[in-house]
This record gives sequence, C-alpha cells and structure tokens, in this order.
Amino acid sequence: MDLAIQLEQEMSLKVQTVNQFVEKYLSDMELPQGAAIAELRKSMLYSATNGGKRFRPVLSVLVAEMLGSSAEKVLPFATAVEMIHTYSLIHDDLPCMDNDDMRRGKPTNHKVFGEDFALLAGDALLTEAFLIIAKNYSENGFVVGRLVQLLSEAAGIRGMVGGQAIDLRAGEKQLSQAELTHLHLLKTGALIRVAVEGAAVIAGAKVHEIEALKKFGEGLGLAFQVADDVLDHGEKDQDVRSFTGIIGLEATKTYLNQISKNTMDELHKVSADAAMLEYLVSFNISRKH
Amino acid sequence: MDLAIQLEQEMSLKVQTVNQFVEKYLSDMELPQGAAIAELRKSMLYSATNGGKRFRPVLSVLVAEMLGSSAEKVLPFATAVEMIHTYSLIHDDLPCMDNDDMRRGKPTNHKVFGEDFALLAGDALLTEAFLIIAKNYSENGFVVGRLVQLLSEAAGIRGMVGGQAIDLRAGEKQLSQAELTHLHLLKTGALIRVAVEGAAVIAGAKVHEIEALKKFGEGLGLAFQVADDVLDHGEKDQDVRSFTGIIGLEATKTYLNQISKNTMDELHKVSADAAMLEYLVSFNISRKH
Repeated sequence: MDLAIQLEQEMSLKVQTVNQFVEKYLSDMELPQGAAIAELRKSMLYSATNGGKRFRPVLSVLVAEMLGSSAEKVLPFATAVEMIHTYSLIHDDLPCMDNDDMRRGKPTNHKVFGEDFALLAGDALLTEAFLIIAKNYSENGFVVGRLVQLLSEAAGIRGMVGGQAIDLRAGEKQLSQAELTHLHLLKTGALIRVAVEGAAVIAGAKVHEIEALKKFGEGLGLAFQVADDVLDHGEKDQDVRSFTGIIGLEATKTYLNQISKNTMDELHKVSADAAMLEYLVSFNISRKH
Repeated sequence: MDLAIQLEQEMSLKVQTVNQFVEKYLSDMELPQGAAIAELRKSMLYSATNGGKRFRPVLSVLVAEMLGSSAEKVLPFATAVEMIHTYSLIHDDLPCMDNDDMRRGKPTNHKVFGEDFALLAGDALLTEAFLIIAKNYSENGFVVGRLVQLLSEAAGIRGMVGGQAIDLRAGEKQLSQAELTHLHLLKTGALIRVAVEGAAVIAGAKVHEIEALKKFGEGLGLAFQVADDVLDHGEKDQDVRSFTGIIGLEATKTYLNQISKNTMDELHKVSADAAMLEYLVSFNISRKH
C-alpha cells in the first residue's frame, strides 16, 4: 500500500479515537439533576462533536506515541485542549464577536441553543478542560501543575484570548508580516503548540526535547495559517490580514517552505522516526483544501 | 473597644489586603506587547477592582488564619476565586444574559469596553484563575491538583455555571423551597463553599475538618441569600424566586436561623476559637443592608 494512503488511514483512526473519547467524556460527566443542566450538556456536546478535524488532539496523540507513551495516557489532556478550542469557536461565533450563523455546515451553537446558553456552554467547556486535567494527572504532582500552567498560559490573555483581542482591535488596519505572524502565534499558534508541549510533558520528555517540540508545534501552527492564505489566494490577495495580501503569493510560498523546513528540523532533533508528524508537515505544504 | 467594632475593623483590613493583592497581580502580569492586550488587561482590572465586598477571598483568608496558616499562603487561591466571581459578573451583565448597564454604581464592563472585550475579559479572568493556582501551589503536587479540581467543579457546569443555566431556564416559574435552595447552592453557594474548602486544603486541614468546613461554607453562602430575601421583603414578597415569596416572611426567618445555627455548629467542630467567622454568621442574620 502507498505510504501516503497508509498514513492517511492511520490518521483517520486517530481522529475516530479522539471523537469517541470526547463524546464519551461529555456524555458521562456526572452532573446535578435537572432539565436545564441536561440542555447545557447537550449544547456542549453539540459543538464538541461537530465534525472538526481534531488537529490539536491528534497532534497530542502522535507526539505521545512518538515519545514511547500512549494515546490512552494523553487523551484526557488532548480532550482538554479540544474543549478549549471548541469554547473559543462558540464564543467567536456569537453576535458580539464574528456573528456567524453557520459553522461546518451546521447552525452555530447560539442559533440552536440561544446566545445565553452558548455563552455558558463556552464557559463550561473552558472550566471542564481544567477539571479533566486535575482528575487524570494528579498522581504526578509535577505533571498536573505543569499542564495547568501551560494550558492556561496558552489559552488566556498570554495566548489565544490575547490573540483574539489583537485581531479585534486590528480592524481593517494593514498589518506587517511580523505583526500578522505575531497575531497567528497567539490566536491559533499557542493552543497548537501546547497540544504538542503538554503531550511531551506527559510522556516524560527531557527538557531539551520539550523545547524542540514546542518550537515544532509553534511552527506547525503557523505553517497551517500560512498554507491557508496560499490556498485562499485570489479571494485573499487584497486582504490586509493575509500573508498573500501583505507580501504577495510567491513570497508567501517561500515563507511557508521556510517555516516548514525549520519545523521539520526541530522534530528531527527529538526523533528520526516521526513518519506521522512529518506527514502532517508535508501534507500541509501541498494540501488542496 | 467594642468587640463588634474591633471585628469590623479587622474585616476591613482583610478587604484592603485582598484589594492590594488582586490589583497588584493583574497589574504585574507579564503579557505580550501591544495596545489591544493592554486594553484587555485594563478591562480585567476595571471589573476586578470595582469595589466589591471581597466576601469570598476574605473568607479564604479567615479560614486559613483560623487553621494556623496565613493570608500570604492563601491569597493566590483567594484571588483565583475572586477572578472567577468577577468573570461571572461580567458575563452575567452582557446583553444576552441580564443586560445590565450598571454595577455597583459604575457602568458595566461591556458599556465601557464593548461587548467583545467584556466577553474576552471574562474568558481571560476564568483562565487566569487556573494559572495563578498552578504558579503558586505546584510545589505540593497534591495541593495543586486538589485546588484545580475543587475550583473547576465549583465554577463549571457542576456548580456556578450549572446554577446559571437553571436560573435562566426557570424563567418566571414558581419554584419550591427545595428547588430555590438547590439553585442557590449551585449558582452562588458552590463558589463560596470552595473559597472555604480550598483554604482548608492549603492550610493542611484533616479530612474531617475539611468536610465540616465545606458544610460551613455551603451553609454560609445559602444563609446570605436567604438573608437577602428577608432584607428585600416587601419588594420581593410576590417574587417567585425568593424565599419570602414562596414560604412567607416568618418561615423564611425561621429557615435563616436554622441554616445559621447548623453553619455555626459545623464551624465549632473545627475550632472553638473562630471569632471572625462567627461574627460573619451572626452579622448576616442581623444585617440591615
């Protein structure tokens, strides 16, 4: 069988594993009685099982496996990261933010459950992310403290939320390449990076390995954003918030290749045998959608 | 000097200590550069230093001191609880929730910073609550895991957010005394309880002491809600969401005395020398505003 096809099949098995874990966790949460709380759970599940790519949690699983750990060990943390990603999408879609009616071909959370429950579902998912970590990693005091610190730094004002603030206030202003890179590193990069870094911590990686993987995660996240801009070129070439709009298509492609190469270099500092993760990087450069 | 006056002065010193700690923490956070992130910090500070009673963090300090620990040790956790309380008020005030323009005599967060930044400030405060815990209690692996677990349970769908969901969906429906009690125990009781319970964990209290203090905190939180209803009697006697509206003034007073007595009993299981906390309970029964 062709290697690319084999890797793709493996990848889709990982996505299934993540899907099952996330759905089971949210369905099995022991909650206080009552119709309102049952409805709030439904709202959380609606967005958390909405057919996403599961890019972050799959990344956690791949990193853990590369380091000799297992999907089982890393799945609670991977689910925490995915819950934070999901909450950010719910809040982003609200009328006071992007005001989106549809996401992945389905009505957005607030269109189905109302703005009030969408707000609460986001708040609850963010909070639950820390609970799943405390419940699953408290046997090792170093690990639990480290995971909570890394995730809260990546998700809050120092990371994702900070990036959203920058994005909102940038408005229609022309950004420089450096400013746009900074925006992406915070808004989406931090959470992708922490999916990698947290998995490395759980797997017991050494400090220099964690450092390299952190750079790998950050680079991979940025590469995805840059590749998106290349793909959307034509739609976005006038867009002040896209690399193609700022530096043009050819320079953006060069930038993407450079980031991807650096990313691969960081990965190889840790392992020579990282087929699945290499596949992710090279797939990204050549993807068509 | 009169004992009540002395206790009141001591209480106001605790409030000052908390105020200084909260303001310093949020002012000193090391954040990425940029005007948007500076503005988001300002929005967080605006609501977190808005002249609140600091009931929850002061409670943490009093419990820690009663158990022979110190304000210093418990203040980071107390601040985490207060940040969660603050975030819940910001989100509650949003147009899609209670749509309030004023809080404590000042414009609400979204009236000053816009709905988008109010939403993000709430998200950032909730996330920061877990960061301050990870940064300050990770030396003791048991403590950090326990605090994150207790706080996320109290703040999320199992606690405060769950209570908000019940409150929203109850609408104008007549609740029973038991249903209203359940609502308060989740919506406000859980966070007050965890302010006490977390402080006990930090102070190294024994399991049976933590258990008694947990009931004390839960009872105290409920007693405050019931006392509010007694105070607002007249305005609220037709209110389907108040104890006086459901069971009448006299039965509500009896209920308040009963909860307060049980609360005091739990406190005395742990310490015979708890003047400040006793003062809180008895002050509540007789307060005039």
